[in-house]
Amino acid sequence: MSDNHEFFMRRAIELAQSGIDKNAGGPFGAVIVKDGKIIAEAHNEVTSTNDPTAHAEVTAIRRACKELDTFQLDDCTLYTSCEPCPMCLGAIYWARPKQVFFAGDRIDAAAVDFDDQFIYDELEKAIEKREIPFLRILREEAIPVFDNWKNKKDKQEY
Amino acid sequence: MSDNHEFFMRRAIELAQSGIDKNAGGPFGAVIVKDGKIIAEAHNEVTSTNDPTAHAEVTAIRRACKELDTFQLDDCTLYTSCEPCPMCLGAIYWARPKQVFFAGDRIDAAAVDFDDQFIYDELEKAIEKREIPFLRILREEAIPVFDNWKNKKDKQEY
Repeated sequence: MSDNHEFFMRRAIELAQSGIDKNAGGPFGAVIVKDGKIIAEAHNEVTSTNDPTAHAEVTAIRRACKELDTFQLDDCTLYTSCEPCPMCLGAIYWARPKQVFFAGDRIDAAAVDFDDQFIYDELEKAIEKREIPFLRILREEAIPVFDNWKNKKDKQEY
Repeated sequence: MSDNHEFFMRRAIELAQSGIDKNAGGPFGAVIVKDGKIIAEAHNEVTSTNDPTAHAEVTAIRRACKELDTFQLDDCTLYTSCEPCPMCLGAIYWARPKQVFFAGDRIDAAAVDFDDQFIYDELEKAIEKREIPFLRILREEAIPVFDNWKNKKDKQEY
């Protein structure tokens, strides 16, 4: 079993290298496995697709969900060549795979100038202290829409 | 100026309602503005597109970047009907708009069963204490790929 995990992680690392070779984006790869089979794989595509959300993990999650025709990755395992950034970590919690394997970590990423720690720090700050200003207006007009959702009979929760 | 902010936020809230009406996904909308004009808008599309990352903010960011043909939202303002979840907050930091306006907050979202706080809490936990297991393997095989990135002459940073 441990050999399988290494097999899939090696594929994620191989994807990271292929993304570099193709000038697709940053040096990161990810693979999603269900029932012992790869159902989706991706490398970072931020700069080649002009999509700042096209990290390897987010892209692999999107592809796996398309493949499974669902928005939940039940019983899936994600292998990523590097510890997920906060965006990808959030995506993982929304997609809910059963486990995640990673190889490099945020310190390794920072050593090649991907400063995830800055974003982790920003998330923990009070909203009025962040580097990007977050300003609140019109709460009273947004709440009725939430109430409409709450009262909706045929809603699909996620 | 403050009137303009309210105008764009009302559009974000209107998008949130239209997403509910169309059964597209959760009750959230977002608008991205540059030079006083809307360049992208979106509502949540998680359940209708089977994409757990298709939150209003992520979707609006992707569309705005397509529109501007870039992966950076310089001088743009994001209006979102609700405080961004950690995934969207991460996406915002990668896209780097100049400011963000929000209406509802994470407490309002929790009141209609969107528990962003759970994810915020998970992000702050040590990696070995998370609800989704995060396990580290093969660091020694991932690092050479990072080194290849570091040494790459023609890389496009982001």
